[in-house]
Amino acid sequence: MHRTKVKVASDVLDANATIARANRADFDSAGVHVVNLMSAPGAGKTALLERVLIDGLDGVRVGVLEGDIQGSFDADRLSALHVPVTQLNTGRGFGGECHLDANMVRSALSTLELHDLDLLVIENVGNLVCPAEFPVGEDRRVMISSVTEGEDKPLKYPLMFRACELVVINKIDLLPHLDFSLGRFLENLDQVSPGVEHMLVSARTGEGVAAFASWLASAARG
Amino acid sequence: MHRTKVKVASDVLDANATIARANRADFDSAGVHVVNLMSAPGAGKTALLERVLIDGLDGVRVGVLEGDIQGSFDADRLSALHVPVTQLNTGRGFGGECHLDANMVRSALSTLELHDLDLLVIENVGNLVCPAEFPVGEDRRVMISSVTEGEDKPLKYPLMFRACELVVINKIDLLPHLDFSLGRFLENLDQVSPGVEHMLVSARTGEGVAAFASWLASAARG
Repeated sequence: MHRTKVKVASDVLDANATIARANRADFDSAGVHVVNLMSAPGAGKTALLERVLIDGLDGVRVGVLEGDIQGSFDADRLSALHVPVTQLNTGRGFGGECHLDANMVRSALSTLELHDLDLLVIENVGNLVCPAEFPVGEDRRVMISSVTEGEDKPLKYPLMFRACELVVINKIDLLPHLDFSLGRFLENLDQVSPGVEHMLVSARTGEGVAAFASWLASAARG
Repeated sequence: MHRTKVKVASDVLDANATIARANRADFDSAGVHVVNLMSAPGAGKTALLERVLIDGLDGVRVGVLEGDIQGSFDADRLSALHVPVTQLNTGRGFGGECHLDANMVRSALSTLELHDLDLLVIENVGNLVCPAEFPVGEDRRVMISSVTEGEDKPLKYPLMFRACELVVINKIDLLPHLDFSLGRFLENLDQVSPGVEHMLVSARTGEGVAAFASWLASAARG
């Protein structure tokens, strides 16, 4: 019984990897670089993207693929900034899939004018587990960890922290009001993903957002 | 292809429901009431339980089943309070299952002295999607929503907010430092789950925790 379950899981991941490679080939041939943006619910993915897109990315042409179980709240926020946004709802499987997979992203490719973009940001469903298990054809992965979530998150969700090239630590404007040791968090992060790049930001005050924008602009150049 | 996937999902949920009923029968025959506690990562499930267990539950004998992908950080915190705690790690399937299911809970039943308990609190994996889709045999479900996660969460994760008999709104000590309208959150909650009970708490300052303890004590009496 357990063996069967593991076999099904491995088939699902194999199929996902195949489709992710096809997505990646399409992205490459269109010359668009792709960032998969992940976090727990409410960590500030959309707020941070808003900040970055308002200021612009140094001429980089950005598009966004919004993953949500249902609704288009985040897509509406971002399209107000005159950026091409496609909403992808995962609400069909079960009571709603908890992550984007390569096939869902593939189903949205025809709605994206890839040749008009330098950078595609894929905002995944808010979840610290499964999004890290399903590559979708991206070049790089970024995860946002809010300081309100606590210092222990790297230890409790290690795959997510290991899967990313960049960990953005958000909501640092709240640090004076929390029992949160940044030093302890960074120790935990280093234990799980030694040497991984990180940056401190506040999407609310704008602190550190320019550094994240530079990182994205650099990702767009490959 | 899509049809097959939906069929697999429905088989999984059917199997889960069958095992959940078996768990429920065991809980009933032992006279223990069970609360399934769910939230996003870092919303404060463990911190709130700590607060409640330190003060005690009016003579109610409480046990905890801790669900985590890996590690026993939360179980260690709670067992320091001399409460029976069993750790359940979900790290086998995929890179870690994002929720507890009825079979995982069933596998832990032999480690629990059910006849010595009035109340079993099952702390689910931090996730606003799949835990709501997998009943484990509980009597009641509680979800904790932190005000730092934003006002839009009921609209974006409706199944979770609908699945619960109680929504605990945590971290209210941070309200003065956030752009969070409690009125707007409650409107969104009411739209998704009209009339659902809610309470305001701060696990950090202790505000509102007594009301949650009373709710748990009442759940323990059935």
